Amino acid sequence: MAERTMRVGLVGLGTIGTGVVRTFQDHGARIAERLGFPLELVHIADIDLERDRGVALDGYRLSRDWREIVDDPSIDLVVELVGGTRVARELVLGALDAGKHVVTANKALLAQHGREIYALAASKGAEIAFEASVGGTIPVLRALREGLCADRVVALHGIVNGTCNFILTEMEANGEPYEACLKRAQDLGYAEADPSSDIDGSDSANKLAILVGLAFGVHLSPTAFPIEGIRRIVPADIEYASRIGFRIKLLAVAKRNGQAIEARVHPTMIPRKSVLAGVEGSMNAIEVHGELSGPTLYYGAGAGSLPTASAVVADLMELARARRLGVSGRVPPLGTPEPREAELCAPGDQRGEFYVRFTALDSPGVLSRITGALGARGISIASVLQEERHESRGVPIVITTHEARQADLDAALAEIARLREVVAPAQLIRIEREL
Amino acid sequence: MAERTMRVGLVGLGTIGTGVVRTFQDHGARIAERLGFPLELVHIADIDLERDRGVALDGYRLSRDWREIVDDPSIDLVVELVGGTRVARELVLGALDAGKHVVTANKALLAQHGREIYALAASKGAEIAFEASVGGTIPVLRALREGLCADRVVALHGIVNGTCNFILTEMEANGEPYEACLKRAQDLGYAEADPSSDIDGSDSANKLAILVGLAFGVHLSPTAFPIEGIRRIVPADIEYASRIGFRIKLLAVAKRNGQAIEARVHPTMIPRKSVLAGVEGSMNAIEVHGELSGPTLYYGAGAGSLPTASAVVADLMELARARRLGVSGRVPPLGTPEPREAELCAPGDQRGEFYVRFTALDSPGVLSRITGALGARGISIASVLQEERHESRGVPIVITTHEARQADLDAALAEIARLREVVAPAQLIRIEREL
Repeated sequence: MAERTMRVGLVGLGTIGTGVVRTFQDHGARIAERLGFPLELVHIADIDLERDRGVALDGYRLSRDWREIVDDPSIDLVVELVGGTRVARELVLGALDAGKHVVTANKALLAQHGREIYALAASKGAEIAFEASVGGTIPVLRALREGLCADRVVALHGIVNGTCNFILTEMEANGEPYEACLKRAQDLGYAEADPSSDIDGSDSANKLAILVGLAFGVHLSPTAFPIEGIRRIVPADIEYASRIGFRIKLLAVAKRNGQAIEARVHPTMIPRKSVLAGVEGSMNAIEVHGELSGPTLYYGAGAGSLPTASAVVADLMELARARRLGVSGRVPPLGTPEPREAELCAPGDQRGEFYVRFTALDSPGVLSRITGALGARGISIASVLQEERHESRGVPIVITTHEARQADLDAALAEIARLREVVAPAQLIRIEREL
Repeated sequence: MAERTMRVGLVGLGTIGTGVVRTFQDHGARIAERLGFPLELVHIADIDLERDRGVALDGYRLSRDWREIVDDPSIDLVVELVGGTRVARELVLGALDAGKHVVTANKALLAQHGREIYALAASKGAEIAFEASVGGTIPVLRALREGLCADRVVALHGIVNGTCNFILTEMEANGEPYEACLKRAQDLGYAEADPSSDIDGSDSANKLAILVGLAFGVHLSPTAFPIEGIRRIVPADIEYASRIGFRIKLLAVAKRNGQAIEARVHPTMIPRKSVLAGVEGSMNAIEVHGELSGPTLYYGAGAGSLPTASAVVADLMELARARRLGVSGRVPPLGTPEPREAELCAPGDQRGEFYVRFTALDSPGVLSRITGALGARGISIASVLQEERHESRGVPIVITTHEARQADLDAALAEIARLREVVAPAQLIRIEREL
């Protein structure tokens, strides 16, 4: 039977968009063979159509205005790769409203406007797919939405920002400070000139909001939970972590805590022997812990033109199949027809183990006063490390705790900060052992 | 809208079947909520309905004869968990012929009879799903079939037998011989009384046949490629591997080699720093290398009642969705509508790096004769290790090669075996570095 060609419009010719063009050019025949029907890129929009991106653009209809793609009645599937949230939102809503299926890699858009977008898609019988928004090429959203759909997820831990993982890997490998490794990441193109959304954790927070949505079937705002970046990590912390059997990673963490969910992004000490600790450089990995499945882990390139394009085109293929079969809503965007509002655990009620590095004058009784303040709040100590002696300017005292409530620890740290012998703010890093 | 309940019949109440019953009992309400419509286990068949399996069976229709499930017109979906291939084949073909969708975890069945089963399913508009057949709970088949469907897979390396991985992990951790670790695996229930299908590689070969089918869109027989198990691995090999930066794993390997595919199962030295090398105990992991995506890796429990049941029920949910929407053939079993016959690379033409441990009398010139035989076939040497001296009974000479053709190495080894000074067969282990 002669099948109608499924026609794709692409908005945004940046790194990923160019990768999508290249994927169609180099793999189009194979993709059509795999689908059993033709899928063609026919229309491309970008405000800059002059810049040489190393791919030929003749043969495509080209537009400077994305509205020409949304208004093009021959287009079945729209790819949104413009970035940002203002134009992207208008474009995605417009395409869905026109009954087109949409693929996007825009984590900020989904984390902030997912609810509105998913609702419109459902009401229009249109589909929205976004595998490339988290973990780049790694099909982790498919794993959560379909592979683990019979299971009840209890926790997930993700290395979802390649820039931070590259910097932390370099800091550990070379004993260099954060700034030098950031500079190298920028020189290599792993970090942007303004790296703040990576370094300060907001990129990871957007991705965590999406992961939590799929893992727990809830709507979660990326600004509703605590976020910490990696700027404050110093080589001494990495070295102490190593000595006590840990490695520091920027993790996106979510767990069930009774009826509520804990969500947070922060530098985390994880056991050196864990699979997640072996994820180096700019690679990403997400570990999911299910009640039935136990731990599963998904690893791969979290960014890059062709890896991310591979996930975008896989989404296009899925939506093209749905279009051809004339079905929609097979699996809802968050895996469940009626996502609930996430009920978040108050940060102070979150529990965990902690690494705390104090800087104190080496005077008699200081360790006793510190441990006393912890003990008074029921925080028990797992290990203490105190070695170097530079009496005039403070010595490091490294303490790890057994499981404690965050609010209790905060109160103890506030008391310790007022001690006369304590000469610098305490460095607090969470420990996650169960992965 | 009141949705019709999708009704499931389960054949086989072994470890996984019992896990499926438990999953429906403990998670049924959540599963129905996630689907948006009810999915119920209603009919169970097993030749032994008396044995206490720790799950209540009242409330289900029970049959001793699987035909009663195939003939039950109220059943939409059939789960085949009987094992073996004779009854399982008859049952799966019968259920598909009756227009029912089928879920199976039976790797031997699919590896040996997949072509017949997939063809019948297509002709009947019925679906066959088998995520649990490879990697237990890990959704790696979904990843290959849908997540990586835009990509061209160039290689895959899998630890797909938990028994072997447990034994090799124990051998390395404790320096113990194979036999002692196999005994421990049997005591812990990780290995069966007759462990040969695990230990000798045929279980891994069945799984590799399925993985290759999905990764390359081909039919591949599990007896068409070389298979080696782990019985011949001795602690000395594990120790030498460690010294040169490797760890030994039983790997299922497939690669493109020109137009052909290399497929093989064998103990393999892989870099200690690779993520795959960090996969310990009975866990499984599959690394896939795609032209666009680069390396991705999928890790989790390869066996166990509830982990495997989680994958079976996820498949049931997928097929229940298809049934409800009245569509079939959305994604074909091997990911492509017309799988080709696998064109295999002749074993002798496969290329790779090798570790070879010779045992030779420590007489002058022996190393020169060994390296001469290798050099004469164009095999260049990467490293040599020769240390201990027990002149009367032969000393180990450990050589690693650069990339070489298997047939050339075999010819060199045959010549070396004829040397008077060589007192035991050479131990040959492949090295895989690119993962």
